[in-house]
Amino acid sequence: MLKELKREAYEANVALPRHGLINLTFGNASAIDRAKGIFAIKPSGVEYADLKPADMVLVDLEGKTVEGKLRPSSDTPTHRRLFIAFGEIGGVVHTHSSHATAFAQAGRTIPIFGTTHADYFNGPVPVTRKMTNKEIAGGAYEWETGKVIVERFAHDNLDPLDFPGVLVNRHGPFTWGRTVAKAVEAAVAVECIAHMAMMSLSLAPALKPIEPALLAKHFKRKHGPGAYYGQK
Amino acid sequence: MLKELKREAYEANVALPRHGLINLTFGNASAIDRAKGIFAIKPSGVEYADLKPADMVLVDLEGKTVEGKLRPSSDTPTHRRLFIAFGEIGGVVHTHSSHATAFAQAGRTIPIFGTTHADYFNGPVPVTRKMTNKEIAGGAYEWETGKVIVERFAHDNLDPLDFPGVLVNRHGPFTWGRTVAKAVEAAVAVECIAHMAMMSLSLAPALKPIEPALLAKHFKRKHGPGAYYGQK
Amino acid sequence: MLKELKREAYEANVALPRHGLINLTFGNASAIDRAKGIFAIKPSGVEYADLKPADMVLVDLEGKTVEGKLRPSSDTPTHRRLFIAFGEIGGVVHTHSSHATAFAQAGRTIPIFGTTHADYFNGPVPVTRKMTNKEIAGGAYEWETGKVIVERFAHDNLDPLDFPGVLVNRHGPFTWGRTVAKAVEAAVAVECIAHMAMMSLSLAPALKPIEPALLAKHFKRKHGPGAYYGQK
Amino acid sequence: MLKELKREAYEANVALPRHGLINLTFGNASAIDRAKGIFAIKPSGVEYADLKPADMVLVDLEGKTVEGKLRPSSDTPTHRRLFIAFGEIGGVVHTHSSHATAFAQAGRTIPIFGTTHADYFNGPVPVTRKMTNKEIAGGAYEWETGKVIVERFAHDNLDPLDFPGVLVNRHGPFTWGRTVAKAVEAAVAVECIAHMAMMSLSLAPALKPIEPALLAKHFKRKHGPGAYYGQK
Repeated sequence: MLKELKREAYEANVALPRHGLINLTFGNASAIDRAKGIFAIKPSGVEYADLKPADMVLVDLEGKTVEGKLRPSSDTPTHRRLFIAFGEIGGVVHTHSSHATAFAQAGRTIPIFGTTHADYFNGPVPVTRKMTNKEIAGGAYEWETGKVIVERFAHDNLDPLDFPGVLVNRHGPFTWGRTVAKAVEAAVAVECIAHMAMMSLSLAPALKPIEPALLAKHFKRKHGPGAYYGQK
Repeated sequence: MLKELKREAYEANVALPRHGLINLTFGNASAIDRAKGIFAIKPSGVEYADLKPADMVLVDLEGKTVEGKLRPSSDTPTHRRLFIAFGEIGGVVHTHSSHATAFAQAGRTIPIFGTTHADYFNGPVPVTRKMTNKEIAGGAYEWETGKVIVERFAHDNLDPLDFPGVLVNRHGPFTWGRTVAKAVEAAVAVECIAHMAMMSLSLAPALKPIEPALLAKHFKRKHGPGAYYGQK
Repeated sequence: MLKELKREAYEANVALPRHGLINLTFGNASAIDRAKGIFAIKPSGVEYADLKPADMVLVDLEGKTVEGKLRPSSDTPTHRRLFIAFGEIGGVVHTHSSHATAFAQAGRTIPIFGTTHADYFNGPVPVTRKMTNKEIAGGAYEWETGKVIVERFAHDNLDPLDFPGVLVNRHGPFTWGRTVAKAVEAAVAVECIAHMAMMSLSLAPALKPIEPALLAKHFKRKHGPGAYYGQK
Repeated sequence: MLKELKREAYEANVALPRHGLINLTFGNASAIDRAKGIFAIKPSGVEYADLKPADMVLVDLEGKTVEGKLRPSSDTPTHRRLFIAFGEIGGVVHTHSSHATAFAQAGRTIPIFGTTHADYFNGPVPVTRKMTNKEIAGGAYEWETGKVIVERFAHDNLDPLDFPGVLVNRHGPFTWGRTVAKAVEAAVAVECIAHMAMMSLSLAPALKPIEPALLAKHFKRKHGPGAYYGQK
C-alpha cells in the first residue's frame, strides 16, 4: 500500500548522501499521508546503496508499524512527534551533516548573517535545550527528543513553516517542509548556512545579525502571498 | 531568436554547479547581445539539472521580457543595471559560493594577498555598502542592488574590467567579464581567492596586502597591451 | 589459500580512498583468520588503483610471510601487535585521514562533544604518548608503535571494542573492529568526528564533553545486549 | 620528437586537476630529457580538458622553443632555472593548490608536525624571500622567480631531493622529483601537509615541530640506502 508515498520517502532518503549530508548510515527521511495518518520512513541501519522503495516502513501516528519487513529507523518516534505537533508538514529529514552538527554539539543557534539564510529561515536556526537524564534514560528517548523540539517551538511561538528546522542539542539537525522534498532542501540549506556562518564568525567574531528589513524582504520573496521567486 | 546567445547563457548557467559554486538553485548567469540590447538569463527557481538552452528568457534593457515562457530570474533587474552601467561587459554571473559569501555576510572586502588574486583583480574585491530600508522595501530591491554596486564602482572610480566582480553586503558575489564565460571564470576565481585569503588570515591575522609591483606584474601578465599569458 | 580472507582485506583497502580517507598511498587494512592465526594485509606502497585481491600478503602472528610475492605493508608489525593484544578484533585499518591526523599531530585526544561520536566510541578517542628515541630508532619501530597503543589501552583499562580506535601521537589514526569492514566504518567515524570536534571547538573553545547519560544512551543504542539500532 | 617525454609531461599535467590541485588554468608540469637537455612543458593558458600530448612544447636549457606550435607556459623560465640548478631532478610541477598557497601568501614555511610530512620532506617546507621590485619588473620575472628558489636552497645548503618543493612567497608551491610523476606526488603531499599543519596549528597554536628522531626515521623509511617502504 501507499506505493507512491514510499517512493517519495525513498527518493528523499537517497538524496541525502548525494547532497553530502550523510556520513555512514546517519540520517533518515520520512513522508506522511495526512489523510491516512500513515508515514513512510527509512528502515534502521540499512546502507543507502542497498535501499529500495519497497524497504520503506509504514508507521501510523500511534507508532504502530502498518507494513514492512524491516525495523523502522530508531528515530521514528521523533518523526512521529513532529508529524503530530506540526500539522502542516508533509516530511521530516534528520542528518548529522558536519557543519550543522558542529553548531548542535556546541549548543549554539546558527545566527542569521545573510540572505542565503533569510531565503529559508525567518530568523536564526533554533537549538533545543539539553535533555534531562530522565528524558534520556527513561525508555522513550527518541520520543522525548521530539518533545524538546516541540517545546522549543512552543516557547517562542515559532511557526514551523517559518523555521523549517532545528538543531537538537549535542546531536544534529532535523528539518521539515510541506513535502519531504522540501525537507531535504531545508537540510541542504541548514548545512550550507551553518558553514557560511562559521566562516563569517571567524572573519568577524562580533558580527551582528542581518538587518530586519533585509531578512523580511528575502524571506517574503520566497514565502507567503507576496512571493515572487520561482515559477507561478 | 538569438539562439546562440541563449546557448551561451545556458552553458554558463550549467557551469556554475559543475564548478561547485551553487547550492540549491542559488545563482544565475546572463549574456548580452549589445547590438540588439537584449540579454538571455536563467529562468527563476528552475533546477540546473532540468535546464535547457530554450528555457533562457530574453529581456531587453528596459526590463521587458522579449521572449520566453518562464519568468526570468528574480535577480534580472540587478543584471540589467550592470549591463547599462558597465558598457564593456558581455555577461554577468551571480552565485552564493560559500567562501565569497562568508566575506559578503561579514561586510568585508577580500584582501589581496597573492598572485592568484592579482591574476584576476587589480586590487581587493570590493564590497558594497549596506542597503537602506527604503532601497530594500521600496518595490525595486533587485534594481537597487545593482545601483549600490554601480555606486561602489563610481565612488572609487574602479574600472569594471580591472575589478570583474563585487561582494554585495550581506548577500554574495556578482561577477562579470567581456563574455559570460569570462564572468564564470571570475566567479570561480572569487571563490578560490576568498578561500585562500581566509586561510592566510587565520595563519597571519595582521597580514599586509601584496606588494604593488607584484600586483601590477601579475595583473598585467594577463590584461592590457603587455599581456603575455596564454596563446596569441 | 584463504582466498575469502584476502578478498575481505582487499575490499577494505579499496574502500579507504573511496571514503576520502587516503592521500597518496598512506593507509592499509588487514583482516585476520583467528583459527589459523594468519592475517591478510596490503602490500607496501602499491597504488590503490592497481591493487588486486591476490596481491594481499598473508602473514602469521609471528610475523612470517606465509604467502604472497610482494612485501607486506611496512606497518605490518603494528597490525600484528594489535591482533595479538586485542583478541576480539578481526580487522585493523590505518589511515592518515586529514582531520584525525591534525589531532594526532597536535598530540590531542578527540573530545567527545556529541551523539555522532557516542554512537561509535564510549568516550574520547585516545592518543598515545610520544615514543622514545630508543623505540623509534631501535630497529622495531612499527612493532613499538603497536606497543604504545597497547600500553595506552592497558593504562586506562580501555576495552578495544568500546574504543575502536586510537591516535598515534605525531602520526595518525589506527582503528579496528570485530571485522575489517567494521574497522573501516570506525575509520570513517573517527575522521568525521574529528572534523566536527574541531569546528565545535572553534565555535566554543571551552566546550564541555557530552553529558554521561547521553553518551551511555547512544553508545548502548548500538552496542551490547540492549542495542536496538539496525536490523535484528 | 621526444614523443615519450611529451606523453610523460602530458600525464603529469592532467593529473593535477584530477588530484584537486588546480583551479582554472593555474598550474603546469614539465619533464626533462637530461641527455638532450630538452624539456616538455604545458602550453600557456590552455584548458586541461582540451590538452593533448602533442600540445606539449619542447624547450631547451637556453630557453629556446625546439618544437611546438603553441607558446609554452609563462612559467617556463622558472622551470628552466630549476632544471639548471638542480641537476638530479627530472620533473617540475607548479600549482596554486589552496592550502599550500595560503601559507605562501602569508610568507610562512609549512612547519613539520607529523610523520605524513616526514615521509616526504626532511624538514619544514621552505618559503622564499620576497622578490625585489627590480626582480619583479625587470623583464625576467619568471627567471628571477626561479633564482630566489635556488638562492633559498643555497642559503641553507638544502638538498633538493631532501626537500622536493618550496613555497614562492605571495605566490604558491613549486615541487620536483627524480621524475615528473614524483613531482606530482610531492605536489599532492605539500597540499595535504599544508592542510593538516593549518588544522594542527588551530588546535595547538604553539605546537612544536616533530622530534628529530621520528623525522629521521620516517624520512629514511622512504629515502636513501636504508629505505624499506614499498616494493624492491
